Amino acid sequence: MVVTPWEFSGDIDYDKLIQRFGTQPLTEEILDRIGDHSGGLHLQLRRGVVFSHRDMDRILDWHDAGLPFVLYTGRGPSGPTHLGHMVSWVFTKHLQDVFGSKLFFQITEDERFLMRSEFDEGIVRHWAFENALDLMALGLDPENTELIANIRHVPKLYETALKVAKRVTGSTVRAIFGHGDDANIGTMFFPAMQAAPCFLASARSGERVPCLIPAGIDQDPFWRLTRDVAGKLRYPKPAQLHCRMLSGLGGGAKMSSSRPETAIYTTDPPEEAEKKIMDAYTGEAGGVRSGKGRKPAACSVYNYFFFLFEESDDRLRELAESCGSGARRCHECKAVLSERVEGFLLEHQAQREMMRGTVADMLG
Amino acid sequence: MVVTPWEFSGDIDYDKLIQRFGTQPLTEEILDRIGDHSGGLHLQLRRGVVFSHRDMDRILDWHDAGLPFVLYTGRGPSGPTHLGHMVSWVFTKHLQDVFGSKLFFQITEDERFLMRSEFDEGIVRHWAFENALDLMALGLDPENTELIANIRHVPKLYETALKVAKRVTGSTVRAIFGHGDDANIGTMFFPAMQAAPCFLASARSGERVPCLIPAGIDQDPFWRLTRDVAGKLRYPKPAQLHCRMLSGLGGGAKMSSSRPETAIYTTDPPEEAEKKIMDAYTGEAGGVRSGKGRKPAACSVYNYFFFLFEESDDRLRELAESCGSGARRCHECKAVLSERVEGFLLEHQAQREMMRGTVADMLG
Repeated sequence: MVVTPWEFSGDIDYDKLIQRFGTQPLTEEILDRIGDHSGGLHLQLRRGVVFSHRDMDRILDWHDAGLPFVLYTGRGPSGPTHLGHMVSWVFTKHLQDVFGSKLFFQITEDERFLMRSEFDEGIVRHWAFENALDLMALGLDPENTELIANIRHVPKLYETALKVAKRVTGSTVRAIFGHGDDANIGTMFFPAMQAAPCFLASARSGERVPCLIPAGIDQDPFWRLTRDVAGKLRYPKPAQLHCRMLSGLGGGAKMSSSRPETAIYTTDPPEEAEKKIMDAYTGEAGGVRSGKGRKPAACSVYNYFFFLFEESDDRLRELAESCGSGARRCHECKAVLSERVEGFLLEHQAQREMMRGTVADMLG
Repeated sequence: MVVTPWEFSGDIDYDKLIQRFGTQPLTEEILDRIGDHSGGLHLQLRRGVVFSHRDMDRILDWHDAGLPFVLYTGRGPSGPTHLGHMVSWVFTKHLQDVFGSKLFFQITEDERFLMRSEFDEGIVRHWAFENALDLMALGLDPENTELIANIRHVPKLYETALKVAKRVTGSTVRAIFGHGDDANIGTMFFPAMQAAPCFLASARSGERVPCLIPAGIDQDPFWRLTRDVAGKLRYPKPAQLHCRMLSGLGGGAKMSSSRPETAIYTTDPPEEAEKKIMDAYTGEAGGVRSGKGRKPAACSVYNYFFFLFEESDDRLRELAESCGSGARRCHECKAVLSERVEGFLLEHQAQREMMRGTVADMLG
C-alpha cells in the first residue's frame, strides 16, 4: 500500500497505517467522552470511519476545562468536489456543531498550482470558489468558519509560515515527503504554509489555543512535521482525527478524479450519478450468483451506505446480512443508493447556489 | 576570493568576477550612450565603480524607442545602513533622475529573518523602516518609488514568486547558492521572492516591461537564476549594472557591520564618524615615511573620496599624486574626509527625519 498526500493505492490496512504513522487507535474511552458531548456518536465514529487520532484526549481535557480549541482542515482546489472529499467535511461540521469551535479551512491554491504543470492561477482560483461552495453548503457556520485561500490570503499565513520554515530543513522535507532533487522550491516550502493555520489562533491571540485536525490519514506527513516544529515555537502540537478514505464506484483504495466515471461529484446531475451507481463495481458481492460468499465490505455501493447514506446501524446490518445471504441483489442496493444520492444532490445543489454570496464574501 | 550574497572576502579581482559570472564589461559605447542621456557621466561610471553589466545595451535600445523600463534594487534589513550600502543607492537615484524610471526597492525582511537565527520579526521590521529612511533621504522620488517589504507586502509578490518557484528545482538552488542539506525550506524558496519584483511591472501591466537592477555584484547569483526563468515565463530577462564594493575603514573587500568600528553608519554622530576615520587603515600609503611607493588605491580613506566624496576627477588625481609623492600625509586626507563626511551626515540625518512620515506611508 502507498499512502502519501499525493498517492493512495494498494490494499489499505488501516491498522498497519496506525503503526506506520505512529498514531493511536480511537479507544472506547475517547469515544465515550466524545459521546458525552454530542449525545450519541456520529456514524463515522460508531463505524470506525474515523479510526485513529493524536492527542484527542488532550483536546477533550482542554475543552472540559472550559478552554477553546480550533478546528482545521482543507482542500486542494484542483477540480470539482466529489463525495470522497465530503467525508471528513461532514465530520468536521459535526465537530463544529458539538464543540462550537472555530474552523480554519485552508484552500491550497499554491500547492495545486505548484504541483500541477498544466495549472495556472486562474484554474486554482476557480476551483477554490467551487470547492468552498461545497463546504459551506454542508451548513458550516459562516460566522465561525474562516476560509484561507493561500494565494489571495497569503498575508494571513506568510509570517507564521516563515517561523515554521526557519525550523525545517530541506533534507527533512525530502525525507518526509519523498521529494527528489527535481522538486521545485515552492513545493519544498509549501509544508510551512500548510502548517501555519495550526498556529494561527495562538499567534493571533498570544495565548495557547490548541488545534484539532479532522482529515484523511494521507495528510499525516504534514502533521508529523508540524508537531515537531510546534515545540520549538512553543505552540501546542496540533491534534488529529484520521478518517478512512471512501473508495470510488470502481473499487480501489480511494475515490479519485482521475477516474471521473467512478466518482460522484456534488455538481453531477442526479441522472448522471444514477448511471455511475448503476455501473458501480460491487466486488465479490456481484460476482456470485449463489447465496454464498458475498462480502459487502468489498462493495463500493455498500461503502456509500456505510460512510454517508445510511444513518441507521440496524438497517446497515440488515443490508449486509441480506447481501451476504444472497437475499438481496445488487440492483436493489443500487436503486436505493441512487434514490438517496439524488435526494442529497438536489438538496446540496440548492444549498450550494444559496451560498454563492456568502462564499464570495468569505473569500474576499 | 569568495563572492556570494552572504560572503565577500579575499583579494577581489573585478575583471575575474566578470569572467566568473559571465557578465560584460561596460564598454565606451555604452558609457557614451548613457552619457548622452545624463549630460556627462556619473562619477561611478567615470571611475569604474559601476564596472559590469548584462543587457544594458538592450535597456538603452528600449528606452530610446520611447518605452519604459523599471529599476529594482534592495536591502536586507539586518542593521543600520552604512556608507557601503549607499553606493548603489546613490547610483540608483541617478538612474531614476536620468531615465525617469519607477524604482522597486525590495526590503527582504523574510530572508534576514530566515538566515539569522537570533532575529525575530520585530527586528527585521524595525530595520526595514530605518533602512528605508536612508534610501528616501537620498532624494528618491516617493511618487516613482515603491517600497516592497517582503513580509508586510507579501501579496505583491507571492503569486509571481510561485510562478518562478514552479520552474526552479531545489537542486538548482543548492548548486547556485551553495546551500547544504541543512538549509531551511524558507531559504530554499526565497530566491523566488527576490526574483519576483523583476517581473512585477510586466505582470501588473500585461505588457513586457524590462527591469534594470543596479546592485553589488555579490547579488548576481539571484539574477542568473532569474534570467533563466524569465524565458520560461515569457518575461524580459532582467538587466544588471554591477557596482564594486566599498571597503571598510579597516581595509578588506567590503564594508561590513561585523566590524562596526570600520563602518560609517548614516546615523553615526559626526564626531564618532571622525574618530573612525582618524583610526582608518591607509594601507601602504600610511606605512611609508618616505615619499616613495604609496598606493592610494589600497587606502580606505582614498576609496571614500573615490566612491562618494570627491566629485572632481582633477582633484582626485591631484590627491592621488600628492599621496604617491609623499607630499600629502594621511592625517591631511583624514581631516578633509572627516569634514566632508560630517557635512554629508548632518544633511542626511536632517533629510532622514523629514522622511519619517513619507516612509511610514510608503510602508503602509
